[in-house]
Amino acid sequence: MSGSLDFAPRILMGPGPSNVDARVLQAMALPTIGHLDPDFISIMDRIKTMLREVMMTGNELTIPVSGTGSAGMEAAVCNLVEPGDRCVVCVNGVFGTRLADVCGRYGGDVVTVGAPWGEAIDPDEVRQALSKGPTKLVALVHAETSTGVLQPLEEISRLTHEAGALLLVDTVTSLGGHPVKVDEWGIDVCYSGTQKCLSIPPGLAPISFSPSAVAALERRKTKVANWYLDMSMVRNYWGEDRTYHHTAPVNALYGLHEGLRLILAEGLEARWARHKANHELLVAGLAELGMGLLPDPDYRLWSLNAVRIPEGVDDAAVRGRLLKEYRIEIGGGLGELKGKVWRVGLMGASSTRSNVITFLGALKAIL
Amino acid sequence: MSGSLDFAPRILMGPGPSNVDARVLQAMALPTIGHLDPDFISIMDRIKTMLREVMMTGNELTIPVSGTGSAGMEAAVCNLVEPGDRCVVCVNGVFGTRLADVCGRYGGDVVTVGAPWGEAIDPDEVRQALSKGPTKLVALVHAETSTGVLQPLEEISRLTHEAGALLLVDTVTSLGGHPVKVDEWGIDVCYSGTQKCLSIPPGLAPISFSPSAVAALERRKTKVANWYLDMSMVRNYWGEDRTYHHTAPVNALYGLHEGLRLILAEGLEARWARHKANHELLVAGLAELGMGLLPDPDYRLWSLNAVRIPEGVDDAAVRGRLLKEYRIEIGGGLGELKGKVWRVGLMGASSTRSNVITFLGALKAIL
Repeated sequence: MSGSLDFAPRILMGPGPSNVDARVLQAMALPTIGHLDPDFISIMDRIKTMLREVMMTGNELTIPVSGTGSAGMEAAVCNLVEPGDRCVVCVNGVFGTRLADVCGRYGGDVVTVGAPWGEAIDPDEVRQALSKGPTKLVALVHAETSTGVLQPLEEISRLTHEAGALLLVDTVTSLGGHPVKVDEWGIDVCYSGTQKCLSIPPGLAPISFSPSAVAALERRKTKVANWYLDMSMVRNYWGEDRTYHHTAPVNALYGLHEGLRLILAEGLEARWARHKANHELLVAGLAELGMGLLPDPDYRLWSLNAVRIPEGVDDAAVRGRLLKEYRIEIGGGLGELKGKVWRVGLMGASSTRSNVITFLGALKAIL
Repeated sequence: MSGSLDFAPRILMGPGPSNVDARVLQAMALPTIGHLDPDFISIMDRIKTMLREVMMTGNELTIPVSGTGSAGMEAAVCNLVEPGDRCVVCVNGVFGTRLADVCGRYGGDVVTVGAPWGEAIDPDEVRQALSKGPTKLVALVHAETSTGVLQPLEEISRLTHEAGALLLVDTVTSLGGHPVKVDEWGIDVCYSGTQKCLSIPPGLAPISFSPSAVAALERRKTKVANWYLDMSMVRNYWGEDRTYHHTAPVNALYGLHEGLRLILAEGLEARWARHKANHELLVAGLAELGMGLLPDPDYRLWSLNAVRIPEGVDDAAVRGRLLKEYRIEIGGGLGELKGKVWRVGLMGASSTRSNVITFLGALKAIL
C-alpha cells in the first residue's frame, strides 16, 4: 500500500459521503477491463436491472451518470429544459436553489415556489404557479440535504401531471434510505447520488427517465447543450447498440454493482426500517441532551438530521473535536443555516445503532 | 469478494482503458473519508502539485475534473466559449469532430480546419482561418485516438497567440506517454483523461488553465451554461476557500494520487522513452508480419498505433479471438476507419516489451 496515503478511517455521519462496506471497496479494486468488453456489458446490464429495482421503476432508461450526484441534477435538467421552457422550481434549501440556477443556465424560464428553510413546500403554491402559464416541468427536492426536510411528493405529482408538465425530483439523500417510488409516485426524471444512503463512494449518479420524459427528449428542437450528459447519445451506449460515447468509469461501476447487490440482499423495506429506527434513536437521545431538530416531526428525513445547535455552543469547535478525538464526521450548516444547525447523517452503512450511541456519547462528553 | 463480479483480468491494448497497477487499485479501496476532511484536503493539495509536474506547468488552476476525459473536453469548452465566440477547430478524426460539436453546443461560431484522417493538421490552414476574423480560441487534438496521429503543436501555438487567441489542446492519449509541455508550448487549456497513459481507472480528467485562460473565464459576460463543470465555482473548492461545490469522487482521487506518485517515481523522461521503445518494437514486429500503420512515420503516436488491417482479414473475428483466446483487448476503427484499422494501445502500464511480444505472437498465430 502507498506510504503516502496515510489516514485513519472515520465514522462518517455528515451529509455524505457515508461509510462504505469493505466489499464495495474491494469490488472497486478489481482489475480494470474495457468499457466495451462482453463481461463489462454484462455488468452494465445487471446494474440497470438492480437500479430499476432500487428506484422502483420499470423505466428502460435507468442508468448511472458518469459523475457525482450534482452531475445527476445537471443531466436531468440539461436533457429536458430547452431555451424558453417554463420551469416551476421549488426552493426551500440549498439544493432547490441550485436546481433553479441550473434550469436558468439551460435557458429555462424559471418560476420559483418557496418555503422557509426547514419547512416543506405547500402543494397549493405549486398549483398556483402552474395555473399562471403552460409549464414544461416542475422540479423539486425530495430530501433537502441542507435542512433535513422530507418533501411529500404525491399531491405535487398529481397537480404537475394535471397541468401536463413533467415532474423532476432530486432524491440524492433519500434513495436507499427512504421509500422512493418512481413509478407509483409518477416521477418523470429521478436522480440520486451514490455516496449517501446507497453507501457507495461518490462518483456516480443513478438517473431514471419515464417514457414521457424520453418522449420530451426525443421531441427536442435543439441539441442538448451538454455533450457529456446528452442522454440521446448516452442511452445508445447503455442500450442495445453499445455505441461508444465516453469511456465508462469502469471501477466505480464495479462498486455500484456490489453496493446495489448488498442493498437488495438487505431488502428495501428492511433498509428503510433500519434508517427510521436509527433516526428515532438519535432524536430520543438528543432530546435527553435537551436538543431538537429543525424540521417539524412530520417532515423529517431519517437519513439527514438537522440538529439545532444550542445557544452559546461553538459550532466549529465541537465538529473539530468530534473529528479529532472521536473520528466522527458531522456536517455544519449551509447557507443561511451556517452556525445554526449540525447536519448529522445516518445514511446507508453509517446508519447503525452503534454509531448513534457513539455519537451521542461523544457529543455529551464534549458539551 | 463479490461472487457476482466474476471475470478474468485482461491485457488491455485497446484505445483505453489501459492496465492499472495493483497499487493504484488498492489505493482506491481505502476507506472513504469526507470531501472536506483535513486529511482529504491534504491529498487534494498533493494531487495538484503532482499534476502540475506531470503537465509541466506552473498553472495554479490545475485540477482533476470529476468525470472522464470527455468531461475534460466539456469543461475546457464550456468555460471558455460564450455564444458568438469564433472558434477555429482542427478536425482530422473523431475527437476533433467532437470538439467542433461541443464548441457549437455552447454557442461558438465554429470554423473547422481539416486534414484527412491519418494526417496531421497543416499550420498554414490554421493561419488562414485565423486571418479571416477575430478568434477567441483555436482547439485541437494533440493525440488523435481514432487515427494514431501525433499533432505537432508549437507552430500552431505561435500562430494562435499572434492572433490573440487562446490555445485549447486535447491530450487525452498523450499525457504520461508523450511529452506534453503545457507552459513551454503555450497551451492555455489542456485536458486529459486518467485511463490512457496515466494508467489510472477511467473517471477523472486532469485539466489546466493558463493565466490567460483564467482571465478569459473571469471576463465572461454570461454564466457558464454547465453548472457541474463551472470552473468559477469548482476552483473555489480546489483553492484556498474549500467552498463546497459538489462532493468530490474521493476514492477515484486516491487512485489518482497513487497513480501520479508512480509516474513521478518512474520519471517523465524515462516514461516517454519506454513508450517510444515499445512502439518501435511493435512497428518492427508488425513489419515482419507484413503490416503497417496508417499515419506517416513523422506523425505517429507511441501510445496508440493505428494498424492497417490486411486485405481479406475479418476485423471483428480477429479481435474476438484475441480477447477470447489470449485475453488481449485491442480496439476496432472508429467512424470512417471502421473495419480498416485496429487500434493497438501501448499506454502506461500496458506499454511493456512482454505485452508487445505476446500480442505479436497471438496475432501471428491467428493470421
